[in-house]
Amino acid sequence: MISDVRPAVDGGRYPVKRVVGDPVTVEADLLVDGHDRLAGALLYRLRGEPAWREVPLEPVENDRWRAMFVPDAIGAWEVAVTGWVDGYATWAHGLRRKLEANQDVELELEGGAALFAAAAARAGRGQASDRLMTLAVALRTPGDARARAGAALAGDAASLMRAHPDRGAATVQEPPLPLTVDPPLAAFSAWYEMFPRSSGAEGKHGTLRDAEARLDDIADMGFDVVYLPPIHPIGRTHRKGRDNSLVAQPSDPGSPWAIGGAEGGHKSVHPQLGTVEDVRHLAAAARARGLELALDIAFQTSPDHPYVKEHPEWFVHRADGSVQFAENPPKRYEDIYPFDFAGPAWESLWNELRSVFLHWIAQGVRVFRVDNPHTKPIPFWHWCIQSIKADHPEVIFLAEAFTRPKLMAVLAKAGFSQSYTYFTWRTSKWELTEYIRSIVDTDVKEYFRPNFWPNTPDILPEHLQYGGRAMFITRAALAATLSSSWGIYGPAFELMEHVARPGSEEYASNEKYQLRAWDQSSRDSLRPIIKRLNQIRRENPALERVTGTSFHRTDNEMLICYSRRSADGDSRLLVVVNLDPHNTQSGWLDLDLYALGIGADEGFQAHDLIGDGRYLWRGARNFVSLDPRAMPAQIFRLRRHMRTETSFEYYL
Amino acid sequence: MISDVRPAVDGGRYPVKRVVGDPVTVEADLLVDGHDRLAGALLYRLRGEPAWREVPLEPVENDRWRAMFVPDAIGAWEVAVTGWVDGYATWAHGLRRKLEANQDVELELEGGAALFAAAAARAGRGQASDRLMTLAVALRTPGDARARAGAALAGDAASLMRAHPDRGAATVQEPPLPLTVDPPLAAFSAWYEMFPRSSGAEGKHGTLRDAEARLDDIADMGFDVVYLPPIHPIGRTHRKGRDNSLVAQPSDPGSPWAIGGAEGGHKSVHPQLGTVEDVRHLAAAARARGLELALDIAFQTSPDHPYVKEHPEWFVHRADGSVQFAENPPKRYEDIYPFDFAGPAWESLWNELRSVFLHWIAQGVRVFRVDNPHTKPIPFWHWCIQSIKADHPEVIFLAEAFTRPKLMAVLAKAGFSQSYTYFTWRTSKWELTEYIRSIVDTDVKEYFRPNFWPNTPDILPEHLQYGGRAMFITRAALAATLSSSWGIYGPAFELMEHVARPGSEEYASNEKYQLRAWDQSSRDSLRPIIKRLNQIRRENPALERVTGTSFHRTDNEMLICYSRRSADGDSRLLVVVNLDPHNTQSGWLDLDLYALGIGADEGFQAHDLIGDGRYLWRGARNFVSLDPRAMPAQIFRLRRHMRTETSFEYYL
Repeated sequence: MISDVRPAVDGGRYPVKRVVGDPVTVEADLLVDGHDRLAGALLYRLRGEPAWREVPLEPVENDRWRAMFVPDAIGAWEVAVTGWVDGYATWAHGLRRKLEANQDVELELEGGAALFAAAAARAGRGQASDRLMTLAVALRTPGDARARAGAALAGDAASLMRAHPDRGAATVQEPPLPLTVDPPLAAFSAWYEMFPRSSGAEGKHGTLRDAEARLDDIADMGFDVVYLPPIHPIGRTHRKGRDNSLVAQPSDPGSPWAIGGAEGGHKSVHPQLGTVEDVRHLAAAARARGLELALDIAFQTSPDHPYVKEHPEWFVHRADGSVQFAENPPKRYEDIYPFDFAGPAWESLWNELRSVFLHWIAQGVRVFRVDNPHTKPIPFWHWCIQSIKADHPEVIFLAEAFTRPKLMAVLAKAGFSQSYTYFTWRTSKWELTEYIRSIVDTDVKEYFRPNFWPNTPDILPEHLQYGGRAMFITRAALAATLSSSWGIYGPAFELMEHVARPGSEEYASNEKYQLRAWDQSSRDSLRPIIKRLNQIRRENPALERVTGTSFHRTDNEMLICYSRRSADGDSRLLVVVNLDPHNTQSGWLDLDLYALGIGADEGFQAHDLIGDGRYLWRGARNFVSLDPRAMPAQIFRLRRHMRTETSFEYYL
Repeated sequence: MISDVRPAVDGGRYPVKRVVGDPVTVEADLLVDGHDRLAGALLYRLRGEPAWREVPLEPVENDRWRAMFVPDAIGAWEVAVTGWVDGYATWAHGLRRKLEANQDVELELEGGAALFAAAAARAGRGQASDRLMTLAVALRTPGDARARAGAALAGDAASLMRAHPDRGAATVQEPPLPLTVDPPLAAFSAWYEMFPRSSGAEGKHGTLRDAEARLDDIADMGFDVVYLPPIHPIGRTHRKGRDNSLVAQPSDPGSPWAIGGAEGGHKSVHPQLGTVEDVRHLAAAARARGLELALDIAFQTSPDHPYVKEHPEWFVHRADGSVQFAENPPKRYEDIYPFDFAGPAWESLWNELRSVFLHWIAQGVRVFRVDNPHTKPIPFWHWCIQSIKADHPEVIFLAEAFTRPKLMAVLAKAGFSQSYTYFTWRTSKWELTEYIRSIVDTDVKEYFRPNFWPNTPDILPEHLQYGGRAMFITRAALAATLSSSWGIYGPAFELMEHVARPGSEEYASNEKYQLRAWDQSSRDSLRPIIKRLNQIRRENPALERVTGTSFHRTDNEMLICYSRRSADGDSRLLVVVNLDPHNTQSGWLDLDLYALGIGADEGFQAHDLIGDGRYLWRGARNFVSLDPRAMPAQIFRLRRHMRTETSFEYYL
């Protein structure tokens, strides 16, 4: 009996997610009645491979078994557990007990001879088979029972028998568990969002070529992904004006999310931004700098999208024959038409929408940020993402779903590689601690990869409006060190744009509705600290995954302290952040030394990778004091303090 | 999308267990993309019923829904969850928001008319349909929009629409979850085990008719089940003598578990005990006293069992042609042959073994204690028990498996109604607390029903050998109040038999190998206290299930304190036991008043149902002192202290 195979998402209904090169550890209960000895193997393969690869399962305790493998390619994998009665081990165990009790074992030796002969037959022809047959014959040859038993129980005999087990009655777990193996970028990424139309010379509508000129800066800041809001033609009917006003001026560029006009739809490029060829060029230019270009896919149209006339069957029509616009009563979005995903023409619609991704993949785009996926059916995403990844396993999908927790979870289960989170609204020590724990200390980590954003074009949270420079640094440091993926909407972030429409968490003079000229040369820019954060991320494997996070007690509610540790334990960081942007906060840390892998009375060095201070600490209690006007965060690399025999001290 | 439906055992692979008349509460996540309103229902039926019965699901929080039903018959049930988009609720929600915002709603009213007309069509002919159609027409009739909307949003319209939902696109969970509904005795039972052959006149082999004479005593002690070791003919070959000696004297009766001789096998009765007719008589006589007769089914044979000659294909044969006897090297049980459950003749063997149960069921036996089920294949038990219960859902199977925890668990999952446990070896406060919590605070409670035995013919635990009368009372009180099922091997228990074979936990002069004469009239007998315990069990619903157990802190490691509470909260017991059989132990209880449903500063009465003392307590801290020479346990019934307006005090 095989049961409780882990990791599994919803009992195998959805795949577990891993990154190529990361170990996959699988556990299962193997049970058999009575006293028989068991053996088992973990089976794994890239889907489509004709045969399983396998590695032996090792017993852990309490009928639990475990094995590990490292997937060597991205794609859809499957894993299964198999187990069987180990006839040789059962026989050897009983034989040893009887020999110890000086019981007659002639019949056991005869039974053993049959086991060896059968193994010889399974081994085919060759040295192994010959040796097994020799052992079988020796067991049957009259003589000293202890000597005959000894040869059959010896290590080399046992190894040969283990190598040629009788698996004719093996149980194989059915169906296998699915496993998605992604490129490392899916788990570890720093995103930079920008509106390309704001990258033109002052006052002029920027182009994709203008945006290309910013790639060096973005790469220099250490980002991995440069992400653009929708780049398609923008509708004119009911176009929104500045600050989301209902009436647009002729010069207003409109919201990029009101997709489609006379110039084309989801597969076209806004003429003022450039051409499809420019997208290809931008993607290649980004990649040359170690950056991936990410496009924003928003499955909705403006009233002017060619689909509206060409495919009225893809939309809901109201009683008066008009197309149903988007609304969340009493809010009305008359510039946006949603698709009718469950309508009679769903199949042609689904195929067309999938072809939008394929179109941009053909231009060299590998990363997509998907707008509001929670307002489209989960089965659509499941089908769309799985079928795209079957041919393009390298593609990464980020779900921009700010919705109910379980709906966010099921989007991740259905295939999204990364997910926006509630981080933007988690500000107190308690909130941050509980939120991180809900992700990394539960099965959620098997399928949900968080991407922490301090701001987005849709959200200028209250704390950034009033917290000043310290709060911007705090939020960046938290996002960059708590989550293995993070992102900012720039240049609004690094230039500390903090003016909101009164009483809202929306930017005033929002780039969604107008061009903005950003002073990239500002001496106040947070560029240096952002660059340092991304550099720390790249140099410390502890930050590459969300696992390995422990929270440590502090005696000051304004001081949050947590550590990050790589799976191999070699990389260890300790982060202390002052959550109060206005006042110096001091306090004692009470470190969980066990979680840090440090002895109770062991000295260790804490090297602040931001301020470059080095401290010698010993024991759990250490004092910190952070002045937010200087630097609200410290990120310590921990080195154990080693004393050699010659009393020469150094740090590992 | 429907997910995480609970309760479920191994994702629905095995049934959840309940008792007829007990509520079954089912929860599930219902999810839909976007902002649509959902509705759902819990579907349930006795397997084979042509149509589902159903009850509406109610939202709990965080997309979790819940419903409850009470199964009204024993048998195999199935439950499933269904959910659908509630078109009316979605429409009504949007309409209300628009009315509040003073938006035009003409198109909404038109859409609503279509919803009402469709519901009218679904309602068929009659008053409901007419009323729905009237509402549809009113929505379409020009006039004041608010008035028309008001009628369609009113309570009676909403009720009608809820009663006739459009479930054409409903999701139904597939496959349904299995649920076993047992008679109450499966969950709540007190067992008395006795060797009928010891019930004869002094020195004479007792008969089933002699055993019948003991039924009044057993019923008077408050037991529900009288359980006999195997009653079949006993083999002579390699028969074990007194104290498990290898050579039996001619007068030695042999072990009842060495089943089968010239006189017959598993379907026969040992001639010295009586006849099959006597079993029928005994079962009826027991039932007339409120007792169920339980037989012991041990699927193994003596070398003399008719099966050995008639069906050699049901046994394993050794290299020399002899039948393989039972062994657990270096232990050899030459008087016992195991069956070959996985051999080539497995199918005829399985059918024959099942027919053993059916044979005794036909004689009126409803309860079986199964010997060592963990040495037989789980698939056999799954098939055997499920197929028997399909025709005889009232039958109860107790698994005597003292083996590894997960193997014990899977036997319960595969169908055993009750299970022996590790209670016999859990003696310290910490062990008892952790063990109970592992059963009642986890999903284990969904399928595993513990039966606590202080002793069995196989086990005289060390603490009963040396703990004296106090320890016997302590173990009985713990078993009777911690587990809803318990049992003793008597008269050895009530007569405090405590002499073991030196250095072992086996009884000396064990009844397994010889007749014993018990002095039923002994003035030292524990009969009065056992009777009182069973009476307390019957009078206090808090003890009828294993759930509702809370442990309370004490400042003395020798004092264990726990409370039991019925599902409705009306029945509340607090138990305090002194685990030290030799010394008076005193200490402060620190009661978890929340778990008891008592206010922090509320007075309450604690009435000791054993010693009959009544105490007025207030608050969490209360002092107790227990002298084991008098009584090592107190079982308090708690009554809240009520003060009426006239200052007359009484207790609920």
